[in-house]
Amino acid sequence: MSWQYLRASIEGGFWRAYQDLVRREVIPFQWKALNDQIPGAPKSHSMENLRIAAGKSRGEFEGMVFQDSDVSKWLEAAGHALGESAPGNDQIGQWAEEAIEVLAAAQQPDGYLNSYFIVKEPDRRWKNLREAHELYSAGHLIEAGVAVYRTTKNRKILDVVTKLADHIDSRFGIAEGKVRGYPGHEEVELALVKLYRITGEKRYLALAKYFVDERGRSPNYFEQEAAAPDYRALWGIRELDYFQAHKPLREQTDAVGHAVRAMYLCIAAADIALETGDAALAEACDRLWESATSRRMYITGGIGSQAYHEAFTFDYDLPNDTAYTETCAAIGLFFFSNRMANLHHDARYADVMERTLYNGIISGLALDGHSYFYVNPLEVHPEACDKNANFAHVKYRRQPWYGCACCPPNVARLLASLGEYLYHVDGQTLYADLFHSGSLTTSVGGREISIRQTTDYPWADSVVFEYTGATPANFTLAVRMPAWCPEPSMKLSGKKLDLAGLNRNGYAHVRRTWQPGERLELQLPMRAMRVHADPRVRADWGKVAIQRGPIVYCLEEADSGPNLQTVTLAPQAELREVFRSDLFGGIVAIGAEGRGWDGSEEPGGSLYRSAGERGESQPLAPRKLLFIPYYAWANRGAGEMAVWIRE
Amino acid sequence: MSWQYLRASIEGGFWRAYQDLVRREVIPFQWKALNDQIPGAPKSHSMENLRIAAGKSRGEFEGMVFQDSDVSKWLEAAGHALGESAPGNDQIGQWAEEAIEVLAAAQQPDGYLNSYFIVKEPDRRWKNLREAHELYSAGHLIEAGVAVYRTTKNRKILDVVTKLADHIDSRFGIAEGKVRGYPGHEEVELALVKLYRITGEKRYLALAKYFVDERGRSPNYFEQEAAAPDYRALWGIRELDYFQAHKPLREQTDAVGHAVRAMYLCIAAADIALETGDAALAEACDRLWESATSRRMYITGGIGSQAYHEAFTFDYDLPNDTAYTETCAAIGLFFFSNRMANLHHDARYADVMERTLYNGIISGLALDGHSYFYVNPLEVHPEACDKNANFAHVKYRRQPWYGCACCPPNVARLLASLGEYLYHVDGQTLYADLFHSGSLTTSVGGREISIRQTTDYPWADSVVFEYTGATPANFTLAVRMPAWCPEPSMKLSGKKLDLAGLNRNGYAHVRRTWQPGERLELQLPMRAMRVHADPRVRADWGKVAIQRGPIVYCLEEADSGPNLQTVTLAPQAELREVFRSDLFGGIVAIGAEGRGWDGSEEPGGSLYRSAGERGESQPLAPRKLLFIPYYAWANRGAGEMAVWIRE
Repeated sequence: MSWQYLRASIEGGFWRAYQDLVRREVIPFQWKALNDQIPGAPKSHSMENLRIAAGKSRGEFEGMVFQDSDVSKWLEAAGHALGESAPGNDQIGQWAEEAIEVLAAAQQPDGYLNSYFIVKEPDRRWKNLREAHELYSAGHLIEAGVAVYRTTKNRKILDVVTKLADHIDSRFGIAEGKVRGYPGHEEVELALVKLYRITGEKRYLALAKYFVDERGRSPNYFEQEAAAPDYRALWGIRELDYFQAHKPLREQTDAVGHAVRAMYLCIAAADIALETGDAALAEACDRLWESATSRRMYITGGIGSQAYHEAFTFDYDLPNDTAYTETCAAIGLFFFSNRMANLHHDARYADVMERTLYNGIISGLALDGHSYFYVNPLEVHPEACDKNANFAHVKYRRQPWYGCACCPPNVARLLASLGEYLYHVDGQTLYADLFHSGSLTTSVGGREISIRQTTDYPWADSVVFEYTGATPANFTLAVRMPAWCPEPSMKLSGKKLDLAGLNRNGYAHVRRTWQPGERLELQLPMRAMRVHADPRVRADWGKVAIQRGPIVYCLEEADSGPNLQTVTLAPQAELREVFRSDLFGGIVAIGAEGRGWDGSEEPGGSLYRSAGERGESQPLAPRKLLFIPYYAWANRGAGEMAVWIRE
Repeated sequence: MSWQYLRASIEGGFWRAYQDLVRREVIPFQWKALNDQIPGAPKSHSMENLRIAAGKSRGEFEGMVFQDSDVSKWLEAAGHALGESAPGNDQIGQWAEEAIEVLAAAQQPDGYLNSYFIVKEPDRRWKNLREAHELYSAGHLIEAGVAVYRTTKNRKILDVVTKLADHIDSRFGIAEGKVRGYPGHEEVELALVKLYRITGEKRYLALAKYFVDERGRSPNYFEQEAAAPDYRALWGIRELDYFQAHKPLREQTDAVGHAVRAMYLCIAAADIALETGDAALAEACDRLWESATSRRMYITGGIGSQAYHEAFTFDYDLPNDTAYTETCAAIGLFFFSNRMANLHHDARYADVMERTLYNGIISGLALDGHSYFYVNPLEVHPEACDKNANFAHVKYRRQPWYGCACCPPNVARLLASLGEYLYHVDGQTLYADLFHSGSLTTSVGGREISIRQTTDYPWADSVVFEYTGATPANFTLAVRMPAWCPEPSMKLSGKKLDLAGLNRNGYAHVRRTWQPGERLELQLPMRAMRVHADPRVRADWGKVAIQRGPIVYCLEEADSGPNLQTVTLAPQAELREVFRSDLFGGIVAIGAEGRGWDGSEEPGGSLYRSAGERGESQPLAPRKLLFIPYYAWANRGAGEMAVWIRE
C-alpha cells in the first residue's frame, strides 16, 4: 500500500460549475470577508490580526482564538484554485501573496506563528492545548502551505510552514525535555502527514503519529495541564470524549464527541495507517468509520446529532430538526472516507464520499456563493427556529459570515481541491471514485496514463471513460458501482461486460492493455426512489425520503406549501422526474401527488378534539409536491423544508 | 361577584387515596427531606438554613436563594392536612410547630424573614428583586401562614406573616419614599390576596394590586435596578418577558416567559379582578388564559414547551419529548383556572382544572409518595435522556428530591388543600366543579347548606349529589357537564332532567328548594375515546391520544414493548376497557391491538435502504397494547413512554 498524489482536472458539468463559482465568487467574497469588507457581515478581523502580529498594522486582536485558521483555509482554497490556469487567477495569486507576506512577517524567530498569542497573550503560548487551538491553527496553515506550494512552487510559504512544523516538533513528543501534549482540536496530525508527503521529511510523519498515539493516554495530558496553577480555561469544556481524549484511539469503538474533531483525528489515523502499515490503527479507523456511517450518519452524509458540543450522540439518534450536521463535519467525513478508500479500496467509502459531497456538504453553500450554512438540518420550521430555544442553532437563511467562520472557507478549499478526490491509485489499479467530466494524467504502476470521463452526472445516467494516453498501457481501471444503483451495466468498446464477474468490493475491475481512444461506457439507471431508514432511527419511522442517483431530495414550502409535517406520500404514488432548467441553474426535480392539511380549520376548533370511540381521519387534501435537491434548499427565501416525508 | 372560602371534605374514592398518601407518606417524607434525613437524596438544608438564621444552629447557608420556600410550601401542606382530624395529625402538628418556632425566631425585628439574606448577605436585602426571590419566598410563607391559621387558629404564624407583609408594604409602592419594585418571580401578589381575605386588611389587597399594576411599566424597574453600581446578577437572565415584565399585564395578549411565573401572576390578577371588579384586568386574564389553554397547553394540562427559561414558546408548539411541563406550572394553571371559574362561572375553566389535576399534576408524584417529577414529558426514550443533551432536563425516573425542589411540596400542598377547589359559590348558586366523594357544608346566599357527592369517578360514570342539610334550602346547584362527555344525563329523584334547558356555560343549573335527602344523579357515559390535536400542533399530526373520562392515557414499555415510535393504532381498532385491580392500586386500563416493529432486523441491514420506485411498506407486526393512565407512568422502572401514538 502506498499513497500517491494525483489531481484530475474538472472540465465540465456539475462540478465545473461549482469550481467556477468558487473561483469567481467564493474566493473573492471570502477574501473581502477576511478583510472586513462585506457590509453587514459579522466582522472577521482575521487578516488584520495577522497584520498586527506582523507589525504592519496597529490595534487589538479580535475574534476567536483560532481566527487565523480562516485565513489559512482561504489560502488553501486559493492555492488549489491556482492549480489550473483560469481567468481571475492573477487576482487570487496577488491576494495569496499578500497573505503569505503577512504570515511570513508575523512568524516569530523560533517559528511560532499564531496571531492571538503573538498579539494578546505572548506569555501563554502552549499553556492551554485543550482549548486554545494553537496546534489546530498551525495545522490549517500547514495544509495551506502544502496546497500553495504544490500548485505554485512558492517556497516562501513552504518555508514558513516547515519552520512552524519544526518548532512544534522541537516542543512536543516523548523524548526527554519535550512536552507530552496534543491538540484539543485535531488537525495538525493530518496536516503533518501532508507536509511529510510533499517534503519527504519523516519527522513530520513521526510527529503526526506521536500526536495520534499519545492522545487519551493515562494520566491524561489535558487534566494535568488544567491542574497547573496558571491554567486558564476558555470555554471550560471538561468532558474528555468531546476531544476524543477519553481513551487512546486504538481502544475506541464509537465515533464520539465533537464530530469535526473526531473526523480530523480519523483522517490522520487512516493516513498514518496507510503510510506505516499499522494494522491496529487501521482497525480502529474501520471501527470508527463503521460507527459514524452505519449508525450515526444522516441520509445527507451529515454527522453530529446535537448542538451541545457539536457532537455525536448515540446509535440511530438522528433527529432531523435539531440536527447539528455541521458543514465542516460532513467535509471531515468526506476526507476520512477518502482515506479509507485509499486504505481498503472498497466502494462503500466512495459511496459515503458521494453522499456527503452531493448533499450535506454543498448544502452549506448558497448557489450564489455569498452565504453559508454552518448547521444543515433535515427539517426546518422557521417559526420554531426563531421562538423555541431548542432550535436556536438552526438557521433557515444562509449567513454571509459567522463569528466562528470555520465552514465557509472549508467548503471553498474542498471544492477547489476536488480534483484530488476523484480517483485513487494502488499498484496497477486506478480507482474511479467519483463521477465527473474531466481528465486525469497520472502514473499507475510506474507508467504514465491519461484518462477522460464524460458525464452529465448526477442528472444523467451515462458515464463514459476514455483512455486518452498517446500509447497503449496495461492497468486496471476499477470503476465504482454506486450502492444506490441496483442495476449498473457497462460496455467496453460497445460490448457489454459481465459486471458481476468484474466486481470486487463494489468496483468493476477492468484490466487490459488500454488502447488510445478506447471507451468504457458505464450505465447507471437512475430513477427517483424511495428510501427508508433503519427502523431504529426513531425520527424517520413511518417516513420516506426521495433519492435519485446520489442526490437526496427535500420538499420546500416555496414549491409544496406550508405545514410539511402533514404531507403524506402514498407508497404507490408516481414519482415524475422533470428537468427544470428554471430552477437552481438546472436540476432534475421530482413531482408527485401527495396529501396534506390544506389549512382549513374552524376558527373556534378546540386544541384537542374527540374523534369518538372509532377514529375519524384527520383532514387531508390532495397536494402537488415538488421534490428538489436537498443541497439547493434555502435559496428562495425563508420557508419550511423537510427531507423525510410521512408515508 | 365575591369570593367565598369553602372547603369540602374528601371522604372516599380517588382523591381520598391521594390525601391519605399525602398525610401518611408525602408530608412525613418531605419533612425528613427538608431536614436532610433522606439517604441519597440531594441535600435540602432548608430547615437548617432557618435554624442558623434563628440562631438555633451554626453553619453556612446552603442551597438556592429561594430555599426557604420549600419549608413554606411544606408548612402550607401541613396546615391544610391539619384541617381534618386524622391519624398522624399529632406528629404533623408537632413538626409544623417546630417549623413555626424556627421561623418566628428567625424573623428580624423589622419583620424581614429570609434565611439566605439573614445568614449570607444581610447588606444585600431587596437589591436584586429580579433574581433573588425574596418576595417570592415571602409569598409562600404568607400562604403557609394563612393555611395554618385557617385550620389551627395558630396566631403565632399569622403574626409572623402579617409582620412580614407589613414590612413589605412599608417598603414597596408608589407613595413617596417607597421603592417602585416588584418581584422577579410572582407569588407574593396572590399570597397577599389570601392574607387580605383572612384578615380583612385592605392594605394587603392594595399592595397585591400595586405589584400587578407596576410590573412591566416603563422605565422598567429591573433595568433600573440592574444599573445600580452594586447590582450583582445571580443567573443573569435579562429577557424581560421571562418575568412577564416586558409590558404591563393589562397590555399582554399571549402567555409568555417562565410558565410558573406567568401563572402565578395571572392567579393574583384574576383574584384582584374578582375582589375589585376591575373589568380591564379580568379581560387581560381572559386573553392570557385563552392563550395558555387553547394554543399552548399539552393534552395533559402541562404548560411550558421548552427547557430554556422553563418557558412558553409559541402557538401550537407542543413537542412531546422535549416538553418542560413543570409540575409547578400545571399547578399554577389549575389555580389560575379555579380563579377564572370564580370570575366567570364557565365550566371550561373547571374542565382545565380537571385536565391538569388528573394528568399533568399528579404525574409529578410517585404512587408511593416518595419521589417526584419536575418535568412531565409526553414521550420518553430513556437512552435519549441519558445521551442527547436536548433531553438533559427529562428524567425517566422520579427523583427523591431536587436541588431546586419547588415541585414536590407544591403538589403536596395542592393535594392537601384540594377540598378548597371542588366547588365555588356565587350568590345563590353553588357550582360543583370537580367530582369526588365527600361532603361540603357552606353558606350559599346567606343560608347554610350541606351536600354530599358520591362517585367512583374517574373510573365510573355515575355521580350522585345528595342534599344533606337538616332543613330545606332554596339554592341553585350548578353541576359541571364536562366537555369530554358527549352525552351526559341527569335525574332528580329518579326523574330525568332536560339538560339542554338547564345548561348555562357548561353547568346544569338545578334551582329548587332542596329537601333533605333529595338526590341528583349525574350520568357521564365514559368510553375510551380517540383524541386528535389541532392540525397546527406539528408534534401530534397523524397521531392519536386515548382519553377516558378526564384521564389521558399513555403506553409504557412495561406493557406495550419497546420502540413505541413505531406503534400504530388503526382508526377502527377496538378499545377494550378493563378494570385492573393489580395495577397502580386499581385503574381502568385500555387494551387494543396495534401494530409495531417487532425488532426483527437483519444485522447487516444498511442504515438507509431503497424501497424502489414504488414503496414497500415498513416491517410491522401485530402488537398487544395496554394504555394506562398517564399519571401512573414511571412507577415500574425505566422504559419508554408515549401519549401520542401513530394512527
